[in-house]
Amino acid sequence: MALEKINQANDIKKIAPEEYEQLAQEIRTFLIEKISRTGGHLASNLGVVELTMALHLSLDLPRDKIVWDVGHQSYTHKLLTGRKAGFDELRKYGGMSGFPKRKESDCDSFDTGHSSTSISAGIGLVAARDLQGESGYVVSVIGDGALTGGMAYEALNNASQLKRNFIIVLNDNNMSIAENVGGMSEYLNGLRTNEVYTNFKTGVEQSLNRIPYGNHLANQLKKTKSGIKQLFIPGMLFEDMGITYLGPVDGHDIRKLLDVLKKAKRVKGAVLVHVLTRKGKGYEPAERHPARFHGAEPFDIETGLPTSRRKKANYQDVFSTCMVKLGQRNEKVVAITAAMPDGTGLKRFRLSYPERFFDVGIAEEHAVTFAAGLAAGGLRPIFAVYSSFLQRAYDQVLHDVCIQNLPVVFAIDRAGLVGSDGETHQGIFDLSYLSSIPNMHIMAPKNKWELSDMLKFAVGFDGPIALRYPRGEAYDGLKDFRRPIVYGKSEVIYEEEDIALLAVGSMVKTAEEVRRKLKEIGYNCTLVNGRFIKPVDTEVLEELAKDHRLLVTMEENVRSGGYGEKVRDYAADRGLKVQVLQIAIPDEYVEHGNVSLLYEEVGIDPESVTKRIIEKYITIKQG
Amino acid sequence: MALEKINQANDIKKIAPEEYEQLAQEIRTFLIEKISRTGGHLASNLGVVELTMALHLSLDLPRDKIVWDVGHQSYTHKLLTGRKAGFDELRKYGGMSGFPKRKESDCDSFDTGHSSTSISAGIGLVAARDLQGESGYVVSVIGDGALTGGMAYEALNNASQLKRNFIIVLNDNNMSIAENVGGMSEYLNGLRTNEVYTNFKTGVEQSLNRIPYGNHLANQLKKTKSGIKQLFIPGMLFEDMGITYLGPVDGHDIRKLLDVLKKAKRVKGAVLVHVLTRKGKGYEPAERHPARFHGAEPFDIETGLPTSRRKKANYQDVFSTCMVKLGQRNEKVVAITAAMPDGTGLKRFRLSYPERFFDVGIAEEHAVTFAAGLAAGGLRPIFAVYSSFLQRAYDQVLHDVCIQNLPVVFAIDRAGLVGSDGETHQGIFDLSYLSSIPNMHIMAPKNKWELSDMLKFAVGFDGPIALRYPRGEAYDGLKDFRRPIVYGKSEVIYEEEDIALLAVGSMVKTAEEVRRKLKEIGYNCTLVNGRFIKPVDTEVLEELAKDHRLLVTMEENVRSGGYGEKVRDYAADRGLKVQVLQIAIPDEYVEHGNVSLLYEEVGIDPESVTKRIIEKYITIKQG
Repeated sequence: MALEKINQANDIKKIAPEEYEQLAQEIRTFLIEKISRTGGHLASNLGVVELTMALHLSLDLPRDKIVWDVGHQSYTHKLLTGRKAGFDELRKYGGMSGFPKRKESDCDSFDTGHSSTSISAGIGLVAARDLQGESGYVVSVIGDGALTGGMAYEALNNASQLKRNFIIVLNDNNMSIAENVGGMSEYLNGLRTNEVYTNFKTGVEQSLNRIPYGNHLANQLKKTKSGIKQLFIPGMLFEDMGITYLGPVDGHDIRKLLDVLKKAKRVKGAVLVHVLTRKGKGYEPAERHPARFHGAEPFDIETGLPTSRRKKANYQDVFSTCMVKLGQRNEKVVAITAAMPDGTGLKRFRLSYPERFFDVGIAEEHAVTFAAGLAAGGLRPIFAVYSSFLQRAYDQVLHDVCIQNLPVVFAIDRAGLVGSDGETHQGIFDLSYLSSIPNMHIMAPKNKWELSDMLKFAVGFDGPIALRYPRGEAYDGLKDFRRPIVYGKSEVIYEEEDIALLAVGSMVKTAEEVRRKLKEIGYNCTLVNGRFIKPVDTEVLEELAKDHRLLVTMEENVRSGGYGEKVRDYAADRGLKVQVLQIAIPDEYVEHGNVSLLYEEVGIDPESVTKRIIEKYITIKQG
Repeated sequence: MALEKINQANDIKKIAPEEYEQLAQEIRTFLIEKISRTGGHLASNLGVVELTMALHLSLDLPRDKIVWDVGHQSYTHKLLTGRKAGFDELRKYGGMSGFPKRKESDCDSFDTGHSSTSISAGIGLVAARDLQGESGYVVSVIGDGALTGGMAYEALNNASQLKRNFIIVLNDNNMSIAENVGGMSEYLNGLRTNEVYTNFKTGVEQSLNRIPYGNHLANQLKKTKSGIKQLFIPGMLFEDMGITYLGPVDGHDIRKLLDVLKKAKRVKGAVLVHVLTRKGKGYEPAERHPARFHGAEPFDIETGLPTSRRKKANYQDVFSTCMVKLGQRNEKVVAITAAMPDGTGLKRFRLSYPERFFDVGIAEEHAVTFAAGLAAGGLRPIFAVYSSFLQRAYDQVLHDVCIQNLPVVFAIDRAGLVGSDGETHQGIFDLSYLSSIPNMHIMAPKNKWELSDMLKFAVGFDGPIALRYPRGEAYDGLKDFRRPIVYGKSEVIYEEEDIALLAVGSMVKTAEEVRRKLKEIGYNCTLVNGRFIKPVDTEVLEELAKDHRLLVTMEENVRSGGYGEKVRDYAADRGLKVQVLQIAIPDEYVEHGNVSLLYEEVGIDPESVTKRIIEKYITIKQG
């Protein structure tokens, strides 16, 4: 076994070239086996096995630095840097992260998670290296999908100014999680096939050699620097931006990869190596369904099917169905995704109304301002986006949508703790960053029916409005509580006195459990579904203050700037005679792990909440 | 006078072509005269007089729509759409905005202010038009500077998919506010001169015609679509992305502009018209110093010099001096700006340490992650950025700097109300959007000496840290209060009892005035300079609670998520026996106008604050 010889960085250099292919095979088998049990990113990792091997063979880690864009394709890198054992606890709480982490290994030079950051970070490392007179190569590995993100372009624009070596590896698998979109993608397709260029170059050269004055013409062409470049070099778009282009090269041919990396290392300045890879390479189900094997649940290796089938609908399924209905009822409804048609549940909308569906690629900033343009033009755009990715478009929400008070609906998916993707993907800031924006409105549904009701409400609302809901299984409890959505109004579910639980979104379910637990020990609690985070229902606060001594706010968001602060602010400002206990996520990043474990860790699980309420209530009674 | 004939949209069409030049001259005279009195954006507006005229001659407003990127170059557009009278009160409170505003005219199709949004918004308007079966042209006018912003590229990437007409006018003046940077800029320079292409095209064609088989070769070239494009078309970078390129064309030649716009209107899909303009055109001082006449104070037309000279140093001057000193003391200190070397005061640092200075162009996202890379590489980067522009990089602060806890210093300039630029530029959200980010630290200096002390502290701090300070004149009062900066600690300036003013940043000065006013009517107040917004100094809160009944927090930031909420949160959570009154900006956008008028408008001027304190204090004494 070749893989057995690899226990730390640079061990791969002990492997004989004849064994490279075998090693690649062993790595693939290892990854498929491990991920089939733990779940994780499979397709992208199978695509970069040879590329990662070639990088490790060409570089000297940790002196040399690799920045993995997005980072979920770093499994082989982790394997080759002594983290084989980590795969048993991959993405589990306390176990190995599915992303590069500086605290995990000195071979991880920069933490990533969101798309399109690697070139910027790489240029920073290069500048730091050069200013401090250090040596070493810096390599940023970026996918063609990530290249649609604007900051990658901002970085390319700056990379051209570098005077010393900086290698950008374009890992071109012709996909984001879904198919790629846009002009850049089509341009890369042209380069991929490369026929045009090769034929053209050969054709011109042969023609010139065959004709009189041909040499003269060839020389004339060569004198004109841009002319000759345009004739003979693919990747002119990059060359035009001042970045040397090498490739395209077969990303599954280690020898060719080693050759091109050798060349790249000799370039002074920024060089882009165009590597063609295939997502899911070597595992047939993943090659056929790369999107399904993007972030995979545990699966059966033989069939490629998930080992456990889910029984209940996801929030995304509910969203999907509701969007199709809304699209039918209202021709002005249009839907936008930033490269997540599957994840957000917009696939069916796309099938039903292809003209009214827009996948803009990994481009959240554009998505939001594009939505603003659609709304200014009289339509009702719904941007379905993961909470942590909407962070990318904070300014566009504030500056392009909300100043003009445009009716854009933000369907914020993956709000709250998302689990195994960890720190970079937790959707725990949206209530805070959206609350402080004037003209913004925010809702959160307690269960699947309310998601549908709120979405309908949002589409009919004349201004910017967001609704946020969690990843995964839709809560189907509290079915009987389905009063119509009224602007700015909460929903009183159970009315008692003394203690009131005021929960928003996913925490209504938790609040119900807490209420049951408290009942068991003799406390009766009022339960209010807050519904609106902005504006806060101040009337209900006034009401609750009359016959309650303790108000417990509950939210799956950081405390700072969240729902509880707004409630406390109002209560204190009006001098309401009620104490407020805020249940929220503390001011810390939350690592990867099973969501219910994470709830416990941050103290928002039913047991922790119950305990804190009892403690607080006792001090109130004593005081 | 030609200009006299223009009183509403489309009136320009009544002007005879022979009068175009005269009209352009009159517009320039008008703008120079008006702006010399009111102040405003001059250089950019003088650059687009003919371009705007040509657009208005070619289009039918308001059916056709123009989206002005950034928008400060829309003065001629305002003149041509019946807003001549507005120039007397340009950028004054209650007067005409310096930016396009939908509420100001139906000829303003989309509000702008920040850079690089126009193509996204334009695509939205195009899609809305087409889906609703409407007619009309949509034109996005974007500068070459704005084209370095990533979201412009995200939008270009999507523009290529349009099937119906969309016109992008690239207003290429070869500048941001300062000189442009990066690969795209150099590429555009190549197109500007255009010699290479013209010579090359002519040369090849002549050569081919002169030689045997020449026709055959030419045909062969023409068959290969990309080949022929690469040979004959400038702007291949745009063509490669699927966008038709027309130009370059002289932006001060109306006839040529009309011709190229006629062609552009016939293109199916997205077309980019490359227009070459000169900033400050027609007014010599502005042509020579376009940066100085970017956003100009009132000036003397004859000399071009400001009519009123400022006597006191700005915060930017203080920052500038301090940066040079820090750079000298510590070789690891590096400075970054996103196209604002002058505005932020980094010019002197650039002169002193050119190697350690980075102007990344209008690219805040890249700037922050680049800074993270520099910090990960062992340096101490300081990113000087306007508060409202840092909004663009919210995710990069959260995701690339703070998760890794990297020592990046954010020198947040133009924090608080900025005045005449209005809603899009007010720096009133940073305390909120930064506070909810784990690992972030935030300070605000009370006066110029404290800015310097805090900057020194920040550079020595091992983690992400921001300091925010206002636009303009540096406060030079409270000189005697200069205790060393201690992590997380506030500074008690005057100690009394019963009422405590707890102010941060610019509001310390206001608090001092309030304190004086209150003293006059017999109230003695404690005055605390909060210094740290995050973490809040909780010890001082505990202390103040002992002998004060009212705690007044004062900040130049929106209330939601700001300093006051944190103070109130702590006080309520700990059950401190003190009432909190929050002085902050309400949950609304703040329009343009003189800053001291705006203070009154939002209720944070000394008089309003004093009044509110008295009211509150009376209720406390009564209660």
